[in-house]
Amino acid sequence: MTPIAWIGDAVDAIDTPALVLDLDAMERNIARMAAFARVHGVRWRPHAKMHKCAALAQRLVAAGAAGACVQKTAEAEALAAAGVQDLYISNEVLAPAKLARVAQLARTLQQRGGRLAIAVDSDEGVDRLAAALAGAQSAIDVFVEIDVGQGRCGQPPGPAAAQLGKRIAAVPALRFAGLQAYHGKAQHLRSADDRRAAIAAVLLLVRDTLDAFAQVGLAVPLVTGAGTGSMLHEAASGIYGELQSGSFLFMDADYAGNDAEADQPVFEHALFVKSQVMSRGPRHAVCDAGHKSHAIDSGLPVVHRPEGGLVWRYGNGGDEHGLLHADEGQPLPELGQTVWLVPGHCDPTVNLHDMLVGVRGGLLQGRVEELLRVDARGALA
Amino acid sequence: MTPIAWIGDAVDAIDTPALVLDLDAMERNIARMAAFARVHGVRWRPHAKMHKCAALAQRLVAAGAAGACVQKTAEAEALAAAGVQDLYISNEVLAPAKLARVAQLARTLQQRGGRLAIAVDSDEGVDRLAAALAGAQSAIDVFVEIDVGQGRCGQPPGPAAAQLGKRIAAVPALRFAGLQAYHGKAQHLRSADDRRAAIAAVLLLVRDTLDAFAQVGLAVPLVTGAGTGSMLHEAASGIYGELQSGSFLFMDADYAGNDAEADQPVFEHALFVKSQVMSRGPRHAVCDAGHKSHAIDSGLPVVHRPEGGLVWRYGNGGDEHGLLHADEGQPLPELGQTVWLVPGHCDPTVNLHDMLVGVRGGLLQGRVEELLRVDARGALA
Repeated sequence: MTPIAWIGDAVDAIDTPALVLDLDAMERNIARMAAFARVHGVRWRPHAKMHKCAALAQRLVAAGAAGACVQKTAEAEALAAAGVQDLYISNEVLAPAKLARVAQLARTLQQRGGRLAIAVDSDEGVDRLAAALAGAQSAIDVFVEIDVGQGRCGQPPGPAAAQLGKRIAAVPALRFAGLQAYHGKAQHLRSADDRRAAIAAVLLLVRDTLDAFAQVGLAVPLVTGAGTGSMLHEAASGIYGELQSGSFLFMDADYAGNDAEADQPVFEHALFVKSQVMSRGPRHAVCDAGHKSHAIDSGLPVVHRPEGGLVWRYGNGGDEHGLLHADEGQPLPELGQTVWLVPGHCDPTVNLHDMLVGVRGGLLQGRVEELLRVDARGALA
Repeated sequence: MTPIAWIGDAVDAIDTPALVLDLDAMERNIARMAAFARVHGVRWRPHAKMHKCAALAQRLVAAGAAGACVQKTAEAEALAAAGVQDLYISNEVLAPAKLARVAQLARTLQQRGGRLAIAVDSDEGVDRLAAALAGAQSAIDVFVEIDVGQGRCGQPPGPAAAQLGKRIAAVPALRFAGLQAYHGKAQHLRSADDRRAAIAAVLLLVRDTLDAFAQVGLAVPLVTGAGTGSMLHEAASGIYGELQSGSFLFMDADYAGNDAEADQPVFEHALFVKSQVMSRGPRHAVCDAGHKSHAIDSGLPVVHRPEGGLVWRYGNGGDEHGLLHADEGQPLPELGQTVWLVPGHCDPTVNLHDMLVGVRGGLLQGRVEELLRVDARGALA
């Protein structure tokens, strides 16, 4: 495929649509996150389901992160193959063929001085994982996932989770590593009060579960969870030892819609879809970025004008087109004009692209400094 | 990346989530479409923005299709590189660097005995295309796109379109090839009467435009357009000479929601996401396919049970998970059980996957017969 950009090119020369990363903004976001974790005395293990890029996972570790989270076995394999050493599959894996790969990867990472961890939420999950590890001459860290309000995976909080912990601890190749308590939905509540209340409810459930573990005499080394939208509360809880927040790195339009909170670091948009106007009607313009270029599960992208000026409204034009509207009496963009979009949701947007075009010096005067491969793009399995 | 399937494997052994193509169902769909076009005496040029797969484009040509449509320059390049000979970029291209690639591709295809066509909808578009072709020692077929109700790209129908046709005809390297009149939205109107009425309105606009071309003395060799949802009416119009329908090949849940019409061929679902239950709650199960595995712009996927029996409801579980619900008192799927999904919208779903797993003999007893590369996956530019 024709490359969308060359290192050293001016921003203007980047083909469209392209996923462009403002490296300066991203580095400021990393510094803010590192400072936040330091102040709260918690570890951070940013979720690589968002960026899917080994180079970025390693840059985050260099800035102090403990490693990377992933959601899928294939993501873990792709990042490990590109050099990432400390990986946590923060999700359940049930298929025996996939668990054999997990066991293989645990051994590979261990031999390299790295480490693999995984989540479970059922007896069956523990037993199958134990069977896969049995012949693998390696060990793996295992977290018990509890459902703290997300309504998706996870054991109910309390005694059932503690029983699962004991089942793990009874298998020599499985190291009980702690609790995963993640409430993804809470992060997208718009009001700061609602987010605070949702995480307060989470903390009660985690405390109950910690009590249940104490009653069966099993120490819980770590509670892991949280995301960009709610991490202020998990970090301040004294219970969570590790934050999984990933979106702070790029920031999307959805997170930016949350109410601001004192003490919450302000992260900048660092990820943009560069597009171009390729058709003009009397009352609208059409750009070359539709929902094959950006995910729309959390809403349409928002137009961003680095040069200032009026912002057009983006309307759904289907898979390959975006419609641009202006307020009454205001000018539309011209044929051929560059239009920048902030995606509604970073994670599935990055997963549409093979490459991130890293720009230094801003979207107006900057140059392409690096091309970042999205190593785990399409790593679904 | 670990392969998701091996040729010869039983369906059971396909890793999840995977995009599985029922080859028998697809071949029946192709035969129905070929018969439909034959009966109506129209050419068909199925849109490859849907399947993005050179092997399928060539299989359709072998079944009688005139060639393939694409939406993007990079799609045309990817399919041409994999051997497709007759391509139509049914969309506008404005960027000079991209038009240079279009000119290069036109020459390459011409030298191979193939052909490239493109759409325009502005004076600027014609002039830039002419400039790109000037030095390329090749020619290209050019369609004038008119807006017949989609409200996206295209000149207004009537005299303005005819003037654009004359501008094309005046450039030696540009061969005026006809009109593109595509009303994508009309295909997704649920009621047969509404679709019929929408296309009746389209036909009036196309006739007006043909009159305007007659008045300036420019012959219109072809009118091209239509999609799976409305093609019955375009095919019967006596005006359209070519149908661009692509979705008939795989059929998605959205098209299947349209009212049936007499004389419209019935196409079968041939494209499925194979997924697996990886967590169970008391009132829901969780499968390993979320909206990184299937697009949700036209609604969530629908659960399909090849073995019959009750069908669970699919609920949004985020990027990597799907929630499965059963009616009151009915059983949920078990941990590890396979769950088949029919995607809401084929086109952006295929664009998420690197590979289509072609199965022969059905989803229950079948075997993997071929692995089809999605050649133009991520070919956005």
